[in-house]
Amino acid sequence: MLRMSTLFLRTLRDDPADAEVVSHRLLVRAGYVRRAAPGIYTWLPLGWQVLRNVERVVREEMDRAGAQEVHFPALLPREPYEATGRWTEYGDNLFRLQDRRGGDYLLGPTHEEMFTLLVKDLYSSYKDLPLSLYQIQNKYRDEARPRAGILRGREFVMKDSYSFDVDDAGLQASYDAHRVAYQRIFDRLGLDYVIVSAVSGAMGGSASEEFLAPTGSGEDTFVRCTSCDYAANTEAVRVPVPDALDPAATGPAHVEDTPGTPTIASLVELLQERFPRTGRAWTAADTLKNVVVMLVAPDGTRTPLVVGVPGDREVDLKRLEANVAPAEVEAFTEDDFTRHPALVRGYIGPRALGEESASGIRYLVDPRVVTGTAWVTGADEPGKHVIDLVAGRDFTPDGTVEAAEVREGDPCPVDGAPLTIARGIEIGHIFQLGRKYADALELKVLDQNGKQVVVTMGSYGVGVSRAVAAIAEQRADGIGLVWPREIAPAEVHIVATGKDDAVFSAAEELARELESRGLRTLLDDRRGVSPGVKFKDAELLGMPWIVVVGKGLADGVLEVRERATGEKHEVAVEGAAQAVLGLLAG
Amino acid sequence: MLRMSTLFLRTLRDDPADAEVVSHRLLVRAGYVRRAAPGIYTWLPLGWQVLRNVERVVREEMDRAGAQEVHFPALLPREPYEATGRWTEYGDNLFRLQDRRGGDYLLGPTHEEMFTLLVKDLYSSYKDLPLSLYQIQNKYRDEARPRAGILRGREFVMKDSYSFDVDDAGLQASYDAHRVAYQRIFDRLGLDYVIVSAVSGAMGGSASEEFLAPTGSGEDTFVRCTSCDYAANTEAVRVPVPDALDPAATGPAHVEDTPGTPTIASLVELLQERFPRTGRAWTAADTLKNVVVMLVAPDGTRTPLVVGVPGDREVDLKRLEANVAPAEVEAFTEDDFTRHPALVRGYIGPRALGEESASGIRYLVDPRVVTGTAWVTGADEPGKHVIDLVAGRDFTPDGTVEAAEVREGDPCPVDGAPLTIARGIEIGHIFQLGRKYADALELKVLDQNGKQVVVTMGSYGVGVSRAVAAIAEQRADGIGLVWPREIAPAEVHIVATGKDDAVFSAAEELARELESRGLRTLLDDRRGVSPGVKFKDAELLGMPWIVVVGKGLADGVLEVRERATGEKHEVAVEGAAQAVLGLLAG
Repeated sequence: MLRMSTLFLRTLRDDPADAEVVSHRLLVRAGYVRRAAPGIYTWLPLGWQVLRNVERVVREEMDRAGAQEVHFPALLPREPYEATGRWTEYGDNLFRLQDRRGGDYLLGPTHEEMFTLLVKDLYSSYKDLPLSLYQIQNKYRDEARPRAGILRGREFVMKDSYSFDVDDAGLQASYDAHRVAYQRIFDRLGLDYVIVSAVSGAMGGSASEEFLAPTGSGEDTFVRCTSCDYAANTEAVRVPVPDALDPAATGPAHVEDTPGTPTIASLVELLQERFPRTGRAWTAADTLKNVVVMLVAPDGTRTPLVVGVPGDREVDLKRLEANVAPAEVEAFTEDDFTRHPALVRGYIGPRALGEESASGIRYLVDPRVVTGTAWVTGADEPGKHVIDLVAGRDFTPDGTVEAAEVREGDPCPVDGAPLTIARGIEIGHIFQLGRKYADALELKVLDQNGKQVVVTMGSYGVGVSRAVAAIAEQRADGIGLVWPREIAPAEVHIVATGKDDAVFSAAEELARELESRGLRTLLDDRRGVSPGVKFKDAELLGMPWIVVVGKGLADGVLEVRERATGEKHEVAVEGAAQAVLGLLAG
Repeated sequence: MLRMSTLFLRTLRDDPADAEVVSHRLLVRAGYVRRAAPGIYTWLPLGWQVLRNVERVVREEMDRAGAQEVHFPALLPREPYEATGRWTEYGDNLFRLQDRRGGDYLLGPTHEEMFTLLVKDLYSSYKDLPLSLYQIQNKYRDEARPRAGILRGREFVMKDSYSFDVDDAGLQASYDAHRVAYQRIFDRLGLDYVIVSAVSGAMGGSASEEFLAPTGSGEDTFVRCTSCDYAANTEAVRVPVPDALDPAATGPAHVEDTPGTPTIASLVELLQERFPRTGRAWTAADTLKNVVVMLVAPDGTRTPLVVGVPGDREVDLKRLEANVAPAEVEAFTEDDFTRHPALVRGYIGPRALGEESASGIRYLVDPRVVTGTAWVTGADEPGKHVIDLVAGRDFTPDGTVEAAEVREGDPCPVDGAPLTIARGIEIGHIFQLGRKYADALELKVLDQNGKQVVVTMGSYGVGVSRAVAAIAEQRADGIGLVWPREIAPAEVHIVATGKDDAVFSAAEELARELESRGLRTLLDDRRGVSPGVKFKDAELLGMPWIVVVGKGLADGVLEVRERATGEKHEVAVEGAAQAVLGLLAG
């Protein structure tokens, strides 16, 4: 039994100054967590209970799925991460340190390398596989912008697991088993979630899905088809590629003076005025916008990249970055333009770029820029544009890239129906790594024919501390937190109000009886605290059931409130424990 | 139910090359832990179970004692540790790092500062106290010589707790409550332990006791009185101080040529020959040996220190270091002697040192060197000693220090009876910190009279991962590990031997039945593995009870072995689960 009289807790009236999202505000105000440094939090007693409850659910479902729990150190030697390139690729996100002898160490962001080496160390035959291992552990990432409390911290708790199989079919089975386990986990945590296709990013590998908890404060944006079950992180959305056209169907490209057209809109206006087309007005979608950025590789190498997208869309830097990872994207500066005279600011033309050009500058276009499509675009000279520049005839890009913004109503790549867009928190990620790590670290086993084969791996993560924030975020209301029963620090919050000793002893007795029947209770046994303050605290703390022992006691009744709905029930003092149990059983 | 057929485990025949102690050898060979880097270990499935079982016991007893669990980050900001001086004092033992913005961080060795600040943050009145908080967490110390596997690692699991009281009586009560909780914990863990007085070392504060698990491989040495209940870490042993003597009772000091006396023994021989005394032969205990060392303060400042001990004892550097902490002790080099000509190597005389000398060199003596005692010692000139040099008359030390070796048979400081000496592993430490941290970080509360008072604190630690090693160390035998039932990964290890399907299904059925009755089982269901290998594995892994299902099955019997004693029992297959339960119940 928890007691408000002794619980290490101070609820706060005011929101923390740096809190942007609901979960952050409420978890701090309700005394669940407290900031120790930017992006680094201390778990206070109630928060720690919630975190441990989430851990328990995760552990039970991973065990049920046949995964075995181990525990790696958080402080890891450099060498394995050097072997896979991640020591460098992680860039500033990696916390690095040296020990007293000058040896290089890191604080583990994820443990692919360590698991791979451990299995290599112990196992050597196909008979040992399949194998799934997991751990629940503190992870470290030196986020550039730690934000939103425990939603994106620099030290956080993650369940990471890894599967090891001898072939692709085995990997698929391990992946599917994790997918089912994750569905069970998030169902039990009372989270609303969507499974979306994801890009693999810095991890390498192929198939990958994310579990997103939809909420306005989520950092991820995802699309869902209004007709089929397609759902994807916007980073992973694949634009439907149109059929190629006949390049000869368009007349020759011609360069024109286009003074006073600093924007796409002004360019379209000029085209409409000076080069009207029959039957079809010029639109921004007829123009090809070439945006130049600087790619920064993990080793610091900087290379210009020009991205061409239809002029009616912006370049989505997050989508771009996800698709050029592990490189990062930086703005192209004044100095950069000076250093690359082939790039005429505002008039970058594709003819100066790409495969066949002499500039050597890489040029990637939106997948809609297929062979035979004609574009109005910069002519590599200030004040001039080129019209009817045909892809595959007048210019050849180095390839395509998914970088154009995705918009509500865009066609679904599966069935063409309109997409909707929403935001969500990434609470889980499942990932077919394939052989990237096993290759780099030489994890092989003997197959049935005695031949050495490289093991294929999956990597799977649940954001355990983040799930706490996601639950808070999705379920909180205007007055406080609302925990699902399995996750709450206590299932029943008993509030004794008034000054009457009888009230306090009745509340105490009820708490004892509920505890003896296996319910976890929090008893507000504080003397000299007003009922108003106690109710406010109970609402803020968010136990799913609140029992008020107070004025009604004289009439032999207690009030039971359901925190989520506000619904109230009167129950007789006589047999109250049984009645409360009945209500909880629903 | 755990199954040997799928358990992520490889038992090893050979000891790891770097293993010095039994627990290290066996925990690695039995597949409980595996080295990831020097002093940094991975917990494999069986080891992780054991660690979690120990954690559970610790948690239950801390909760029972009324302490509340929280969880701090391991990655901590520099500032609080700067405020208390520990950022510097910890020297090379602290893992330090910088984040991407150049902010200084450390990996927490213990969390006094953070707890103090948290309580200061939330609490402000005597009414909020007493308070005890704890956490079970990864701790980090960059040990100079990580050794003995998980016995002394650089990343390790510790339960640390902190008590907060308004006055000394409160602190004593909190301290006593922890003492009782620790006794319960170590009793439940099946550890043999001794509670000994300890020095406070770098932690500051006053009363302090250690829980040591006696074992030959322990890093700590402790004494016990053969008559009373006095027990102390040798570092903390206080030498009984004799009464002062009359300085005038001894004739004047006289310097003598003492050629050819490079050792105490040769000096005693020369004294005996050239200056025989009536009634009492010269012994090494008549000489005063002055040993010079270099003290290195945490900020790097180096100061010579001369320690004077009776010539029949060595200086115990560990005792010396414990009593000059946080300074460290280094050897005095050739160069150092050149820089300090007052110190004549081999002939350091106390007259050149201490309070009244001009050398400025600090001189601390053994507590037995009381006023009026006469000594033979160096005369600050090569080849000369001074005889009848009387303490308090001919020289005045700067103070005393406990640095002389403690020997088996030395008198108990309480009752004078002989002391015995043994070695042990420090598994717990309880500590009255007092107001050191509260003062440094200004943790004050209002007392009953509305006056601000500084809070007094205790700090208490249990080496959770070290306890796993200590249990292994104390209980292992020649053939493997032996776990107590509550801590074992499984309570019953069922070994199915032979090729007969009936054997495997009987074993399986028994395992299921025992599990359904709440027993944790490990089933060796491997096919094609010889009985000898299975028995060897079972002995190595160390579950407390081993049930053999094999040849006897035809006659309707199973064999139940007690791992610790080797005792064997035959039980009927019919009702075997009940019989096993009966045996386990003792």
